[in-house]
Amino acid sequence: MKPAGKDLEALEAARQRQCRLTKPRGALGELEQIAIRLAGIQGRECPEIHRPWITVFAGDHGVVAEGVSAFPQAVTGQMIVNFAQGGAAISVLAEQTGSRLEVVDVGSLLPDGEYLGVRRERAGPGTANFTRDPAMTATQLGQALASGGRAVHRAREAGADLFVAGEMGIGNTTAATALACALLDQPPEALTGPGTGLDAPGVAHKAEVIRRALFRHRDALTDPREILRHLGGFEIAAMTGAYLACAERRMPAVIDGLISSVAALIAERVSPGASQCWLLGHRSAEPAHRDVLAALGGRPLLDLGMRLGEGSGAAAAIPLIQLACALHRDMATFDEAGVASGR
Amino acid sequence: MKPAGKDLEALEAARQRQCRLTKPRGALGELEQIAIRLAGIQGRECPEIHRPWITVFAGDHGVVAEGVSAFPQAVTGQMIVNFAQGGAAISVLAEQTGSRLEVVDVGSLLPDGEYLGVRRERAGPGTANFTRDPAMTATQLGQALASGGRAVHRAREAGADLFVAGEMGIGNTTAATALACALLDQPPEALTGPGTGLDAPGVAHKAEVIRRALFRHRDALTDPREILRHLGGFEIAAMTGAYLACAERRMPAVIDGLISSVAALIAERVSPGASQCWLLGHRSAEPAHRDVLAALGGRPLLDLGMRLGEGSGAAAAIPLIQLACALHRDMATFDEAGVASGR
Repeated sequence: MKPAGKDLEALEAARQRQCRLTKPRGALGELEQIAIRLAGIQGRECPEIHRPWITVFAGDHGVVAEGVSAFPQAVTGQMIVNFAQGGAAISVLAEQTGSRLEVVDVGSLLPDGEYLGVRRERAGPGTANFTRDPAMTATQLGQALASGGRAVHRAREAGADLFVAGEMGIGNTTAATALACALLDQPPEALTGPGTGLDAPGVAHKAEVIRRALFRHRDALTDPREILRHLGGFEIAAMTGAYLACAERRMPAVIDGLISSVAALIAERVSPGASQCWLLGHRSAEPAHRDVLAALGGRPLLDLGMRLGEGSGAAAAIPLIQLACALHRDMATFDEAGVASGR
Repeated sequence: MKPAGKDLEALEAARQRQCRLTKPRGALGELEQIAIRLAGIQGRECPEIHRPWITVFAGDHGVVAEGVSAFPQAVTGQMIVNFAQGGAAISVLAEQTGSRLEVVDVGSLLPDGEYLGVRRERAGPGTANFTRDPAMTATQLGQALASGGRAVHRAREAGADLFVAGEMGIGNTTAATALACALLDQPPEALTGPGTGLDAPGVAHKAEVIRRALFRHRDALTDPREILRHLGGFEIAAMTGAYLACAERRMPAVIDGLISSVAALIAERVSPGASQCWLLGHRSAEPAHRDVLAALGGRPLLDLGMRLGEGSGAAAAIPLIQLACALHRDMATFDEAGVASGR
């Protein structure tokens, strides 16, 4: 999935263009690198981001029965409704950044029925409690991955040029941290954090729950897909499916916080090079994110101490990405402006 | 200049509002703090930033005769024209963020005459070479400070609700670093950086030039105003004047990189508490910025390796500041959304 042919030409043209703009070389820092990277993904010297798209995937987690979250499980369903009604952080960020927002229930415990603005593609009524059983069956994993792929397809059909995947699922920092431990071969004490707001004893208990799950499934954690099936969540699997689809279709994606980054790391392990199509949106305050970002090999755009999920950190980075494109496209060159270049 | 009366009430109301919004407490990190801080400055629970204003102050520097810059001195004037013609980074950032941009020549070597879109308020034809003489006379310093104050007055009259001061002046990282050394009592080797792109011998020479200037004026560097007069630049003094006016008029300002932060530090020393009305926009790649930010006592919003000046780092932070206000204003509360709050 590395740039080739016209994409590689666009990447090189963008790199050279940056050297001609009226500023010292490199003086726009990461904003230059974003424009160059997007040029390689979009296959044109001047990339454009006009129609960002945000899909929030939601699912519930059986492991919540172990008492790993500061919020009750019902909040997953309540927040699904809040997303669709415009009251959540990601709803406001979508509105402000001109992004289209959709909400996909890939496996919450929200009662059957129709909810305005919510797409229901449930792979199951929450995952199994992974301290006892694999979180998902193979069929459920396939369904959740496919849900993610379809979201990218809808985005592409609607003319979107940037994809943000967000998530909601009470208990999902437990699942994501368990996945990170398995993927990075780290002990739970090193990576477990407060999630939505556990105190120190709560964090210690959460780490112990993760330790039990890793031990229970130790013989099954043989490849990224099986790790995802045993320890993941429906919404995490959907995000992995979405990131794989972004790479296949060369749709630029912005990675969010811990949950999103773990899903991305699995996608990169499944399909090496997929990460060439992503930008890292922000550094979360959740401790495991540091290690997962290091494994993804990049420096995120924002570092604001956010730890909300929903795609909020990635969405907050959208204006910066658009500024990077505008600077790249609209700044005058030294020749055009009659400005002398440096020594 | 600390919030008092209705401003203090607004600050407290904003703080409480953040606790009621549908998210774990503190989960929006710095974005919460921005909204709360602006509430205290604007004196209302829900602050609004709709009309950002950017003034770029430009001036030339006599110390350029010592060979301290990678770009020729004529670039100051060439860039003044580029700003006004829309080709510079700050021109593009102003356009994209919906900010009104004005360019004030407070003392460049641009030949006499009218330049469309450039306000000419020159305190002199560049500063004196401060390795020999004080950079400015007392009269010139007063003129430059007043230019900054008038810019804030124009912004306020035009209905602006956020002020960004940018700068242009070949040689001005030398002046700003000399000021930082004097203000922070640091040796030039510790703070001197490449500016627009010096190599290692160039940086060493620049540090030596600063050392000579500090030695020459050692008995005169008795207070912030005199430090500014001996080692500063017209555009730096204008920024100090602007920040002082922002604090007086309770106009929120966004501080940019090294030059801007040095000007802000002088304003804070002249009028302690003034910094309550500012937000820190970004962390520059220029090494002295780290120490100046530490003295200003805050953590900037962006850290993108930018080192351009012009107000570009502050302008790039405007969308984040607006997102912070929108989240604060538009997110649903737990009660409104029927979402259970955490334990």
